[in-house]
Amino acid sequence: MKPFADRLIDAVKSKNSRVVVGLDPRLENLPPELQRGVRTDVERAAQAILEWGGEIIEAVRDHAVAVKPQIAFFERLGPFGLVTYFALCRHARKRGLLVIGDVKRGDVPETAKAYAEAHLDSFGCDAITVNPYLGSDSMEPFLVEAKARDGGLFVLVKTSNPGSGDFQDRLIDGRPLFLHVADRVAEWGSKVMGKYGWSSVGAVVGVTHPEQAAKAREALPNAFLLLPGLGAQGGKASDVKPCFGKEGLGAIVSSSRSVIFAYEKEPWKSQFGPDQWTRAVAAAAEAMKKEINAAIL
Amino acid sequence: MKPFADRLIDAVKSKNSRVVVGLDPRLENLPPELQRGVRTDVERAAQAILEWGGEIIEAVRDHAVAVKPQIAFFERLGPFGLVTYFALCRHARKRGLLVIGDVKRGDVPETAKAYAEAHLDSFGCDAITVNPYLGSDSMEPFLVEAKARDGGLFVLVKTSNPGSGDFQDRLIDGRPLFLHVADRVAEWGSKVMGKYGWSSVGAVVGVTHPEQAAKAREALPNAFLLLPGLGAQGGKASDVKPCFGKEGLGAIVSSSRSVIFAYEKEPWKSQFGPDQWTRAVAAAAEAMKKEINAAIL
Repeated sequence: MKPFADRLIDAVKSKNSRVVVGLDPRLENLPPELQRGVRTDVERAAQAILEWGGEIIEAVRDHAVAVKPQIAFFERLGPFGLVTYFALCRHARKRGLLVIGDVKRGDVPETAKAYAEAHLDSFGCDAITVNPYLGSDSMEPFLVEAKARDGGLFVLVKTSNPGSGDFQDRLIDGRPLFLHVADRVAEWGSKVMGKYGWSSVGAVVGVTHPEQAAKAREALPNAFLLLPGLGAQGGKASDVKPCFGKEGLGAIVSSSRSVIFAYEKEPWKSQFGPDQWTRAVAAAAEAMKKEINAAIL
Repeated sequence: MKPFADRLIDAVKSKNSRVVVGLDPRLENLPPELQRGVRTDVERAAQAILEWGGEIIEAVRDHAVAVKPQIAFFERLGPFGLVTYFALCRHARKRGLLVIGDVKRGDVPETAKAYAEAHLDSFGCDAITVNPYLGSDSMEPFLVEAKARDGGLFVLVKTSNPGSGDFQDRLIDGRPLFLHVADRVAEWGSKVMGKYGWSSVGAVVGVTHPEQAAKAREALPNAFLLLPGLGAQGGKASDVKPCFGKEGLGAIVSSSRSVIFAYEKEPWKSQFGPDQWTRAVAAAAEAMKKEINAAIL
């Protein structure tokens, strides 16, 4: 297999898309036809999410380069939820989408190794998100595993939530913590370079903080940035421009609610009735692709 | 139900123990009688871990106040592993042990809420470990959920791995990052106080860094410290003394390999044959309880 960075770039070019669709299965937002019994029967809930996720994958596969299942929403359903997570990851890969497991794992080295094997092998993700708070030795097993399996990592650098500054923005030697983390990400990533000059170790940088995102971009010239926060969290397409380099490479933009629950909101809600919710999802994904391309190309 | 801090203290007093047994099911260390087929058949591996874990729980229940299953080793087995994790958490609680899910989760607020519900409700842990890198608003849903369910949290402050200093020891306004995190933990914990004057929000502090542990203790007068790293990771019982207050309260000490795989090592290996591996585990747990009590009381 090719290194993750190369597979990602091939997908960006062939689909002319920088879109990542976050799969956050919130039971309360499932379309009416899948709602029956999901609140009282966890098996039924898991089944409904599997059906919903399968439809989402079909709807977005031509417009997105990757899906990013958020494992928290699957874990909420207990063991059944993880069966669904596993099945959806597998299904998305078969349908030509890269799978970025949004798991934000991080632990002491021996445990980190177990997590790396779990998510890059057992659950079969192409890439995962990881949390750097425990330091370099806690990231090493993820790097080893990613390299061995041609997988990718996106290290949390500057997250999209309003409170991310509590620790990430604090100054250490005159430079915010998130840039110190970015420096390390650059170092880690230099060991996992693809043929296009981009690393398979990327960084998560919230598009909700455009100034910091631009600084992270500077500190990380060879890392793909995964930019969450577009849409429901408040990020705008015009904010992502500084994160992209030539040929529209160097970043991918993630949105969850505004695509996967597009059928709940205008303009899609009136354009497609409740029976055509999958078409609303496809239309929202396509619109997002075009909006980003218009902003950056 | 009583607040987690009170339940923990009741257990410490009634068992006269500060021992937490980490459940890290590494297939390669299972006793010979449970090894058959576990490398080639994931269902069999999950079943073997379930049997092994059940025996460990029986062996340590009189000597430990809690078990701390490390979810990474269960996730490594994919969905089957999570079924086992769920079953073992449930089994441990029924056998009178508190369950501290070592999950180290942390995410943006809406996702953190899903994680909190997942682990404090769906998987039924009494407490979980959480990662603070994303800031206060990312911890809030965990606090709300812990309060609503009388659950507990242990926030990563200073971890036990050698590389923990990469970010955690960096100085911000002359004070290391981990103490800034500790300050926030004190603040968060003040909202979830039990009747004994201890909070249900504790902190993870590696016993492998005794000096930093003492500083964390000062910054966190009302938080229970969860001290990992005793035994295989190099921490010594004498190092934990400064972390305890009057009546031997204020901390719990976690060990994994040196208890759960005691049958592989001396003095237990020769004292108990391979058929009596559960007795080796019980003896190691009891010895750990006594060693800690001797060091602190």
